[in-house]
Amino acid sequence: MSQFRAFLEEAADLLGPQGLTTDPDLVEPWLTDWRGRFTGRALALASPADTGQVSALVKLCASHGVAIVPQGGNSGMSAGATPDTSGEQLLLSLRRMNRIRDVDAEAGRATCEAGVVLQTLHEAAEAEGMRFALTLGGKGSATVGGLISTNAGGTQVLRHGSMRALVLGLEAVLADGSVFSMLTPLKKDNRGFDLKQLLIGSEGTLGIVTAATLALIPAVAERVVCWAGVPSLEVARRLLHHCEGALGNAVEGFEVIPASCLRDVLGHLPDTRAPLAGEHAWHVLIETVADETGAAHLRDQVEAMMAGAFEADLVEDAVLSASETQAEALWLLRESISPAEKAKGPAVQHDISVPVEKMPGFIDTCVPLLEREWPGTEALAFGHLGDGNVHFHVIAPRGVDADVWYAGDAHAISARVHDLVTEWGGSISAEHGIGQLKRDELARLGDPTALAMMRAVKQALDPRGLLNPGKLI
Amino acid sequence: MSQFRAFLEEAADLLGPQGLTTDPDLVEPWLTDWRGRFTGRALALASPADTGQVSALVKLCASHGVAIVPQGGNSGMSAGATPDTSGEQLLLSLRRMNRIRDVDAEAGRATCEAGVVLQTLHEAAEAEGMRFALTLGGKGSATVGGLISTNAGGTQVLRHGSMRALVLGLEAVLADGSVFSMLTPLKKDNRGFDLKQLLIGSEGTLGIVTAATLALIPAVAERVVCWAGVPSLEVARRLLHHCEGALGNAVEGFEVIPASCLRDVLGHLPDTRAPLAGEHAWHVLIETVADETGAAHLRDQVEAMMAGAFEADLVEDAVLSASETQAEALWLLRESISPAEKAKGPAVQHDISVPVEKMPGFIDTCVPLLEREWPGTEALAFGHLGDGNVHFHVIAPRGVDADVWYAGDAHAISARVHDLVTEWGGSISAEHGIGQLKRDELARLGDPTALAMMRAVKQALDPRGLLNPGKLI
Repeated sequence: MSQFRAFLEEAADLLGPQGLTTDPDLVEPWLTDWRGRFTGRALALASPADTGQVSALVKLCASHGVAIVPQGGNSGMSAGATPDTSGEQLLLSLRRMNRIRDVDAEAGRATCEAGVVLQTLHEAAEAEGMRFALTLGGKGSATVGGLISTNAGGTQVLRHGSMRALVLGLEAVLADGSVFSMLTPLKKDNRGFDLKQLLIGSEGTLGIVTAATLALIPAVAERVVCWAGVPSLEVARRLLHHCEGALGNAVEGFEVIPASCLRDVLGHLPDTRAPLAGEHAWHVLIETVADETGAAHLRDQVEAMMAGAFEADLVEDAVLSASETQAEALWLLRESISPAEKAKGPAVQHDISVPVEKMPGFIDTCVPLLEREWPGTEALAFGHLGDGNVHFHVIAPRGVDADVWYAGDAHAISARVHDLVTEWGGSISAEHGIGQLKRDELARLGDPTALAMMRAVKQALDPRGLLNPGKLI
Repeated sequence: MSQFRAFLEEAADLLGPQGLTTDPDLVEPWLTDWRGRFTGRALALASPADTGQVSALVKLCASHGVAIVPQGGNSGMSAGATPDTSGEQLLLSLRRMNRIRDVDAEAGRATCEAGVVLQTLHEAAEAEGMRFALTLGGKGSATVGGLISTNAGGTQVLRHGSMRALVLGLEAVLADGSVFSMLTPLKKDNRGFDLKQLLIGSEGTLGIVTAATLALIPAVAERVVCWAGVPSLEVARRLLHHCEGALGNAVEGFEVIPASCLRDVLGHLPDTRAPLAGEHAWHVLIETVADETGAAHLRDQVEAMMAGAFEADLVEDAVLSASETQAEALWLLRESISPAEKAKGPAVQHDISVPVEKMPGFIDTCVPLLEREWPGTEALAFGHLGDGNVHFHVIAPRGVDADVWYAGDAHAISARVHDLVTEWGGSISAEHGIGQLKRDELARLGDPTALAMMRAVKQALDPRGLLNPGKLI
């Protein structure tokens, strides 16, 4: 490590005692990714106080040739914020930069630093009668910077888009330490390339997000959740189209759940019961919301929509939430799929998308195909049909040794799922990003022209490869 | 030209007699930009029949070192599709590639080649009960490829965004002739950098758009246009906020017109009359629309919104269109501002944006400032207040020699307007792009970090500078 001694001394001078540590007790919790699949080592953990310190630190790293791994809440799903095992990379946490600089309800936006936790942003918006429309399971740890760097998704993408649709302005530190400063939101700006979108979703490989201006919308004033039983995914897809035609933007979420998943959830959570009395091959959870301008009409509109769906034979049975408690109870079933599955043993998860209209055919074809090719496994798909994005999981045969399975079949199964998704014109990463987890799969299956473009852009903006090396490309 | 003889022979072989011409009668109409400010020369006019020919042609150009100027309808406002005067650049028209490959009403999208004219796309969507939501004055000539390459705006951006928000999938030929092929729309895809958005708005400097998949929405079923008189721009801005709060997405356009502009229009078009009886410092045109799901309620909602605006002292007087004829008549006044202004003599136009909330202050400050600094001029600002984007025009003093004025004061006035916009945190090009017209101004006033990023990306993706050289950067 002696070649890094001068760097560490200069970094300590720059950042002060609060800003740099090599104490293993403080560093180690951040060296393993959220899923526990990757563990690295780090030269030190840097926690700069502001953008100026990030810029100065990146310049210092550049002058010493030290690679940087930016990190937010460390709750990403693809190990994009975990350093490698060399111990020569600097872990750069943005968590200390957690100020919400401004919430402007009238203009519909909030400006905050990269380390602001999503839940904190939600609460700050609510306090002003507003709402930040992106939410996801990790909202208690995920930071604004991480959400932007990974272009995070979640359950409201159907209406509001993923993170890149909600970023109005951006500030980031580039590989040479210069500051890309476009926090001021202009609704229209045609001064050349869309550098903001280039940085969003680049997983810290092109720049380190330090602050952003985010879109806020009026708070939800009314919500109706509908749970419906349908005979097939193709009917679910037609129900989605019927819903959107009848309710337009009021439809915020459209989640599909196979009968087997619901059974597992009900078995896993003893206090829950099935929303519908009968048996249905697929279940659909539809989230509809309105702000104050539409609240008075929402329930009538949803009831009319469902009446039309019954008439058109698009649902076998359905129930609407009559209260927030009921709405929460329906969502709990959806959100308990992963924990219920975890209780069943080892499994591999795939976060995939195909064009919405192909999703029924994809699942109906690939679920039995996987189970046939790997006897004893259970394949299941659930999630955001409205976005053409499902979580496609394969559970190991009962009784297998987890380590053996993860090292062998699990790997082959993932490759097969990714092959199938690619054949169907889809994406091997719908919302979780590439990180370390899928880097080699992207290199194997990605479009060669797109990969060549990405490598050229990376080389142009970070010629020495100091920003999050080994991730994405 | 002898060094180009081999190239022209090979290109003629590749493209056939329909695909390449050097006939001056056929080439010359495309050598001058829409505004008539720039005239170039060209080696030849190439009109490939399909993406394969574009790819092969670009490879041929690369092997001979021939620069390419892509061109759609040649109706851009910044001379981005006009070759230089060397006569050594190849003019590559996409107009022959004008097939609409598919209109899918259920999926809400159309796939078409780059040469499809916007009006043609509108009609194809309408025939399926759908709508392509971007429109602008040049819709009879502007092509899909040009609209994408310049990230075109128009009058409905407030609700639907500019072109980059409406492109679901993209196909483009890159500088080495490789084909970037992402026509299949995935609602969620996190496989690395957003290359699609990087190409959109790059004005043909990073790639040549050959086809796109575009978002369609349900057709308009009801429209109500409101014309209101207000005492100031600040009140207009508050009225905008009131409108959006009361009507949400139903508000598609919010245009502001100063009293002097309306006076000029009424003088220019003898058959028109003022929508309101009294005098008002500013006029506001509000476009509200609904598709079938909202049509029944729209008029009631707009009336309630206006009643609220009167109560809150946000309007002095107002009228609603009672028919499509009346709606068109109100829009005619807005659309006649430019012709009326043209009749008043030489003028310089600026297509600028600042943050919406700063727009009243910007106009109230800069209009008198310009008129004071250049006595005898008339400065005026009108347009898309809802987008923070106005057309800021300065009319020459009466009786000046046009050529002298354009060569002198006009230039200085534009530089001054761009300085002011930059000081106010705005953009010197809100929707028209940079092209040749504003290239030097962007280099002078653009953020150095952003400019360095753009140059690095350009160098990475077109190292020999063969794609639309001399434009944008």
